[in-house]
Amino acid sequence: MDSVSTSRAHGGTQGVYRHASTATGTDMTFSVYVPDHAPGARLPVVWYLSGLTCTHANVTDKGEFRAHCARHGLIFVAPDTSPRGDDVPDEEAWDFAKGAGFYVDATQAPWSANYRMWTYVTDELPALVAAEFPVDMDRQSIMGHSMGGHGALTIGLTHPKRFRAVSAFAPIVAPTQVPWGSALDRYLGDDAAAKRRHDAVALIEDGARVKELLVDQGDADGFLAEQLRPELLAAACEASGIDLTLRMQPGYDHSYHFISTFMGDHLDWHAARLSA
Amino acid sequence: MDSVSTSRAHGGTQGVYRHASTATGTDMTFSVYVPDHAPGARLPVVWYLSGLTCTHANVTDKGEFRAHCARHGLIFVAPDTSPRGDDVPDEEAWDFAKGAGFYVDATQAPWSANYRMWTYVTDELPALVAAEFPVDMDRQSIMGHSMGGHGALTIGLTHPKRFRAVSAFAPIVAPTQVPWGSALDRYLGDDAAAKRRHDAVALIEDGARVKELLVDQGDADGFLAEQLRPELLAAACEASGIDLTLRMQPGYDHSYHFISTFMGDHLDWHAARLSA
Repeated sequence: MDSVSTSRAHGGTQGVYRHASTATGTDMTFSVYVPDHAPGARLPVVWYLSGLTCTHANVTDKGEFRAHCARHGLIFVAPDTSPRGDDVPDEEAWDFAKGAGFYVDATQAPWSANYRMWTYVTDELPALVAAEFPVDMDRQSIMGHSMGGHGALTIGLTHPKRFRAVSAFAPIVAPTQVPWGSALDRYLGDDAAAKRRHDAVALIEDGARVKELLVDQGDADGFLAEQLRPELLAAACEASGIDLTLRMQPGYDHSYHFISTFMGDHLDWHAARLSA
Repeated sequence: MDSVSTSRAHGGTQGVYRHASTATGTDMTFSVYVPDHAPGARLPVVWYLSGLTCTHANVTDKGEFRAHCARHGLIFVAPDTSPRGDDVPDEEAWDFAKGAGFYVDATQAPWSANYRMWTYVTDELPALVAAEFPVDMDRQSIMGHSMGGHGALTIGLTHPKRFRAVSAFAPIVAPTQVPWGSALDRYLGDDAAAKRRHDAVALIEDGARVKELLVDQGDADGFLAEQLRPELLAAACEASGIDLTLRMQPGYDHSYHFISTFMGDHLDWHAARLSA
């Protein structure tokens, strides 16, 4: 692992790091914020998964998470959203391929060689973070935005014992029912069962459970009606007994202005569950 | 004035606007954050001047000012740092010409046609902001970073009655004594008196006064010893009776990680003086 940059911020260290990923077969870049802490201490870790077109940099620049993480003593990890590099297959689309890995392990050519973000985010990067940073891997939580909200919900529902809290900003909750979900068709082919494993609403319908979820959604979000459809998550949670706190935020859009506004609420919520 | 974008953020509106500037002879873009307020209310306004290479976007994306402005009821205005456009003379350098207007009215060709940032920031843009936003122009303050700290100090010292508070992050305090100040030679030629009017330390030596100043400076800032030299400002303030609070911040660099960390302290300080 190489350090790309480190900078003191809000009484801690904001770093950007690069490593050769076995999962994706490429170099991968991610950011980690570590608040100052007592020597030898190990801190809870919050995973933040980003949305379409993003790298680690968007939330690192605009997420306004550092003051809250410093206050609560939380490490904050932000991975990239896809493999990168000239050798990685890509398309012109902004909602498929580079910047749009959808947190799955692709099975279809040509994507299957590199687009293995599920393994990267759930297995390889956690092992690296556990080895390199002062994290307490018994206290993890996960959140994300849009496509990254999809990632946080599906990963959280699949690993209910690993994550003590799961939340999302404007998540894609049911990719198999919305246009953006065509990416799953291309990454996973005709495997309907695999696609249901990467659809939060379908996972819940199929029996996956967490105790509770926190979701914020702006009602001026241009993707709300066609791509996000939080009512589908609300119905699935209602039917399954998952305690969903779904907050519709009047006037807010899909941008980091929305995320940064409610980041503090989410980190308060995570911190309460990570310290319990 | 055209609206480029508006987005709800932290219980207010973050906007980006564009207008045809008479001062620069170009279109100019700036951002304004307006917290929600009672109908008819007029809010105090904080001017933020950015540093070399920046546009309005850097602080708007990374400054973490909105939560504090919302809490205090402050409007926050962030201008660009130079004229822009294909017709504006430029050079390859990152510390001269575009992105480096140094908040002066250039008198030397070819810069004098467009590089009139002093008039733009002190006259034209305030008139536009007063006409278009719910500002109380009797309650203004000014801050800036690096080259923008230079701008905030020189403008604040020149207009002590206009600004109730003046502060800076890692400012250039004495451009006539440091390498970056060669920009003043190129914009202003051999006019030593004009250059002293655009040098905070020289202004103070020549009699300009404000009651107090707040300056934060990271001690890991790579520009500290050669370009910034806060000790020159400290000496000038000491000799002139200006109450300078100069805080050396251990480990902090010149980036927005530094600025965003101490933005809340500065806005608290401004708010106290704007509400007094």
